[in-house]
Amino acid sequence: MSYLKVGASALAIGIGFIGLVRADEGMWTPDQLPAIADDLRETGLELDPAALTDLTGFPMGAVISLGGCTASFVSDEGLVVTNHHCARGSVQYNSTEENNYLADGFLAAANTDELPAAPGTRVYVTVQVDDVTDQIRSGIDGEMSGEEVFAAIDAAEKALVAACEEQAGHRCQVASFYGGLQYKLIDRLEIRDVRIVYAPGDNIGKYGGDIDNWMWPRHTGDFAFYRAYVGPDGLPADHSDANVPFAPEHVLKVSAGGLDEGDFVMAAGYPGSTQRYTRLAEVKHTFDWQYPTFETLLARWIEAIETAAPKGSDARLKYEARLAGLNNYMKNLGGQISGARRVNLVERRAAREAALNEWIAADGAREKFAATLVEVDALTEEGAQAQQTNWVYNNATRPQLLSAAQRLYRLARERQKPNTERESGYQERDMTFFREGMQAIDRRYDPVVDKAEWMLFIEDYMTADDNVRVEAFDRALDLPRDWDPEKVSKILDRFYDRSELDDVETRLALMEADPDQFERSRDPFIKLAVALYDHEMALENAAKDRAGRMAELRPDYMRAIIDWQESQGFAAYPDANSTLRVTYGTVLGGSPQDGLRYDPFTTLEGLAAKATGEAPFDAPERQLDVIEAGDYGSYALEGLGSVPVNFLSNLDSTGGNSGSPTLNANGELVGLLFDGTIESVNSDWDFDPRTTRTIHVDSRYMLWVMEKVDGAQRLIDEMEIVTED
Amino acid sequence: MSYLKVGASALAIGIGFIGLVRADEGMWTPDQLPAIADDLRETGLELDPAALTDLTGFPMGAVISLGGCTASFVSDEGLVVTNHHCARGSVQYNSTEENNYLADGFLAAANTDELPAAPGTRVYVTVQVDDVTDQIRSGIDGEMSGEEVFAAIDAAEKALVAACEEQAGHRCQVASFYGGLQYKLIDRLEIRDVRIVYAPGDNIGKYGGDIDNWMWPRHTGDFAFYRAYVGPDGLPADHSDANVPFAPEHVLKVSAGGLDEGDFVMAAGYPGSTQRYTRLAEVKHTFDWQYPTFETLLARWIEAIETAAPKGSDARLKYEARLAGLNNYMKNLGGQISGARRVNLVERRAAREAALNEWIAADGAREKFAATLVEVDALTEEGAQAQQTNWVYNNATRPQLLSAAQRLYRLARERQKPNTERESGYQERDMTFFREGMQAIDRRYDPVVDKAEWMLFIEDYMTADDNVRVEAFDRALDLPRDWDPEKVSKILDRFYDRSELDDVETRLALMEADPDQFERSRDPFIKLAVALYDHEMALENAAKDRAGRMAELRPDYMRAIIDWQESQGFAAYPDANSTLRVTYGTVLGGSPQDGLRYDPFTTLEGLAAKATGEAPFDAPERQLDVIEAGDYGSYALEGLGSVPVNFLSNLDSTGGNSGSPTLNANGELVGLLFDGTIESVNSDWDFDPRTTRTIHVDSRYMLWVMEKVDGAQRLIDEMEIVTED
Repeated sequence: MSYLKVGASALAIGIGFIGLVRADEGMWTPDQLPAIADDLRETGLELDPAALTDLTGFPMGAVISLGGCTASFVSDEGLVVTNHHCARGSVQYNSTEENNYLADGFLAAANTDELPAAPGTRVYVTVQVDDVTDQIRSGIDGEMSGEEVFAAIDAAEKALVAACEEQAGHRCQVASFYGGLQYKLIDRLEIRDVRIVYAPGDNIGKYGGDIDNWMWPRHTGDFAFYRAYVGPDGLPADHSDANVPFAPEHVLKVSAGGLDEGDFVMAAGYPGSTQRYTRLAEVKHTFDWQYPTFETLLARWIEAIETAAPKGSDARLKYEARLAGLNNYMKNLGGQISGARRVNLVERRAAREAALNEWIAADGAREKFAATLVEVDALTEEGAQAQQTNWVYNNATRPQLLSAAQRLYRLARERQKPNTERESGYQERDMTFFREGMQAIDRRYDPVVDKAEWMLFIEDYMTADDNVRVEAFDRALDLPRDWDPEKVSKILDRFYDRSELDDVETRLALMEADPDQFERSRDPFIKLAVALYDHEMALENAAKDRAGRMAELRPDYMRAIIDWQESQGFAAYPDANSTLRVTYGTVLGGSPQDGLRYDPFTTLEGLAAKATGEAPFDAPERQLDVIEAGDYGSYALEGLGSVPVNFLSNLDSTGGNSGSPTLNANGELVGLLFDGTIESVNSDWDFDPRTTRTIHVDSRYMLWVMEKVDGAQRLIDEMEIVTED
Repeated sequence: MSYLKVGASALAIGIGFIGLVRADEGMWTPDQLPAIADDLRETGLELDPAALTDLTGFPMGAVISLGGCTASFVSDEGLVVTNHHCARGSVQYNSTEENNYLADGFLAAANTDELPAAPGTRVYVTVQVDDVTDQIRSGIDGEMSGEEVFAAIDAAEKALVAACEEQAGHRCQVASFYGGLQYKLIDRLEIRDVRIVYAPGDNIGKYGGDIDNWMWPRHTGDFAFYRAYVGPDGLPADHSDANVPFAPEHVLKVSAGGLDEGDFVMAAGYPGSTQRYTRLAEVKHTFDWQYPTFETLLARWIEAIETAAPKGSDARLKYEARLAGLNNYMKNLGGQISGARRVNLVERRAAREAALNEWIAADGAREKFAATLVEVDALTEEGAQAQQTNWVYNNATRPQLLSAAQRLYRLARERQKPNTERESGYQERDMTFFREGMQAIDRRYDPVVDKAEWMLFIEDYMTADDNVRVEAFDRALDLPRDWDPEKVSKILDRFYDRSELDDVETRLALMEADPDQFERSRDPFIKLAVALYDHEMALENAAKDRAGRMAELRPDYMRAIIDWQESQGFAAYPDANSTLRVTYGTVLGGSPQDGLRYDPFTTLEGLAAKATGEAPFDAPERQLDVIEAGDYGSYALEGLGSVPVNFLSNLDSTGGNSGSPTLNANGELVGLLFDGTIESVNSDWDFDPRTTRTIHVDSRYMLWVMEKVDGAQRLIDEMEIVTED
């Protein structure tokens, strides 16, 4: 939960785009750090800032991606530490009624007892990053249509990725920075034998649960350990007993002491997306229409699921994850909306655009920027309009078996093309995830609930303005002119009664089918997928066309921003894009609102005070006993009089940063970043130094739990623990 | 809401009963203050503590009761200031669709524009307090049964009250202190022509609404003004144009400056009830059974009402007040339960009882106390057992028309006796309130909702253990052996179809009826009331018997407590009993939980930051404009950089304290007490200095609103405003 779900959520929408850069604001690319070395040193960094730019050196070489979460190597034997909420799926995957690892926690007594992580779990080790801007942009000329620009960039990216992935066991990607002003090819080792080593029970790792999610004070032991395994040849391999622990080039030392209020901290991680440079038109669209509309829908959607899948039902079990995701997203949206109001987001963005306009107008040489801005804004409006127009239709195509049918039919169509020319997501390199996605439906699908959701979406579709209705959809479903729940219910029943896509073997077999097998199918979801194909492609092409046009405009806009910032003596950093970033600042409490203050640390005693004996405040008895006995081991913070559990900092983070190693001035691991306070979530749009606080689990609490509560001494011994004063 | 509802709620149950007395703990009777004069002076009081004992002198003579709330005189012309939530019923009473004073606020341009307060509104001015312990206890001897003791005390109280009320316009009461160790006769002038002068709109006076209820940070303008009127002869009179403003002997000056963090503050008011001396057996009964049971019921009860009275329905309007009350009570219970856990209430009470036992055992002369404690505990258990046994039956008799029928039939029976011998509540002195109660049903009753509530209660009744069923109830309702919703629903329908008690004239006419008119009635609710009468009387007599026995025991228990405290150098104060008390301490922030701190003041800017434009955060535009303009007038607190809106103190308060004037070291009004933080509510049982904080509206905010927002200069001019530095 917490950060992960937002970054990884299919619900999150955002192309992104400054606030003036202050000491605590900024998700810096490692190559930017020498440029801000003075501030880093002033804030407290004792390592050479230049060392941080070497992605394969210390400490960055120890920072890895799990895809959606961040993690780090903490032993020469491939031991990986990340958040509990990033590894919880693997704990769940291995849990049975007899061995309920979610409740009891899991600790492998020896390497041989470590269990395979959930399907799809990967450890990505960045091995090289190259600027490929020229290669990407060389195929573009000013005469091209948006669609052509998009296609040219897409083709160039695919060619670079394909070449890069000729190295066995590598997974590559091209990432766009500053809205396409810069492109980088990121070459990563993809380790696919990942095993769960240790995770405390939910009563430590998820302590406080959804109630404390996004909240401070916090007492969550949000840590867990994986181990990365490779073949005996040292190369990535499928899970096998013959595999051996991966030997990383660099590992982090783990600190057992020293961090206090005001100390320097930094975090390295893979933040998903931010909107710091978004134009006012998109800010308004988002906060005036998109977020409130989504918030309203979410409340009804959640209610529909809860009604169709009552508490305690088997169906509810399948939808717990979705409900948790929707609730998490709704809490986040609430925070976004109130945050935007609190910081006067719209007014601030308007003022910034006025200031930028003034700077542009001050020098004739900057005139081109003015024209670009007009076009950017018009295109932004166009995109917003398209989103509104397609809103109810897009929701009405959410049913899981329809999505599966659409993806399978698309695959059949794409497979008619040479592999390298296929749409992203449908290439051979994507087939493992594709297959896992088709399999996962079984764990998340119930026809009664799916139908209840579909009814809700179709009601919205049919009661919206006539001009947003899609003829192909109306016809294929044989929808009545007006909303008629009884009639529609019967129509939908036929889908669930007659479709065979609820069978996993059927879905997997269809991964090999030809297009005409789909076109001849009598399966209602497949028929609907085929009927909607042309409309879907038209929507996709229109979106690509807008993206292509934006790819030509936004680099100029970002150039203006960078030059303008530079003219004021500030460095600009690119919006988050799931690539490695560094954020730094200090351990710091906060004033989230008038009359209220956050202390920087929470304590064991505070954890015990929250304990009710019932989830999510069901701290284990043995933990409460150790707290009661005042047995802090060597992990107490003197001024605090206790072991620090969680701490706050002013780091700049967002979803995807979950699991990021939090490092002290010497690059030692002092904690794991796992959440932001609810008052911070709007910082994705506009960093507010007063309210933005990132939440970390303290390494002293982690070690204390391992030593005093869970008996994980084996792992403590495996890591290099450092103490300082 | 806030404090008022709990103190005044029929749901609140509690006979009450020390923590060691600390500077901030204690609801002192005015006559106790000389004894603790040193601490008062040390804490900062500049007035002579002895002055505070004179209830008819300054400043106590200015403190008045509204019955359920506290208020104070702030001008020679009878101007009264209290909380907005204490006067809101009168604003509502005068509101119409055209003149929506709740939304827009009400401000009388001149005295002649002041409007009558809601029926039943009274201003009680305490004129004399006499110790009547001897008179009350003289009729008791050790041979009496519990019922006889109860009757003897009751008769003595009634005689004293009757004699006192021979003075026209006086309303008297006998109050028991320290569980009957002391009785006082309180003689109060009862002013019954009360008019509403000024109340800000809900968007100031109820800003934050139910969301902020019990919460800090707070920004509520919880103040309003009444004026007391009397006949031209100066005596209380019914409302009449001929009446003149009451001229109080003493009035409070209103402070426009000076109060800061750490400053001395005290509040005088009428706290309803506390349980500081309750025995462990009752604490356990309450927290192990009563509160959790009630909490569970409340959730289902609220759901039943919300389902039967959907949002927007006429029925919902009638039940808003009840829903608000139930929700307020549920929030309070949640705070009580988590507070008890946080302070380890049960362990602390057990430790205190062990310490008391040790003190008793240390001296043979204290032996009698040991025997008393055994008896007190046995009787406490007996009472707890009775409550559990009668629980589902008592709930099953909650329907409003059944209660009305029961009260009317009881009245008919009581009217057979001489007035002075009638049960309290059925004497002539009670008839005005009785009649108002019968009238009020019209505004709060809907048959569909009432039936839905009854169904819920009868389900609980019928699914409970057989031994708690009441034969007379089963027979009169002709209930099936087992719970059968359909059958029971039909049975209840007959009640609502055939009863005429939903007609106010019918109810009022029955106030004059003889018992046999009831006994011959075919009205189903009246028939049920008659059928249950004997059982109800048996329950009442059993309760009186327990109360009588406790009245003999508890004075000894409290004597032990007082002596024990004294032996340690502490003064003991009696539990709250709706009589005038003084609490004192300092303006102080707090640490409600690990990792979180409360600042002592909130600001205008914080108020503006909460504004969303929607209730309950719909601060008026004109207010936001003045804040935006930074126009603080003369009301800013320098260190705060703004006008303080609400502030926290460590005063010891509870429900009934609402509206209490908060006084500075010189006895000037610096604010109005209106709520406690949710972490404090458990202090009713055990004062926890770490978490207990009382919330006040700052007089500077009140004056700022009056001057800058609502244009109430007339009233500012009428009061004596003092400034200091």
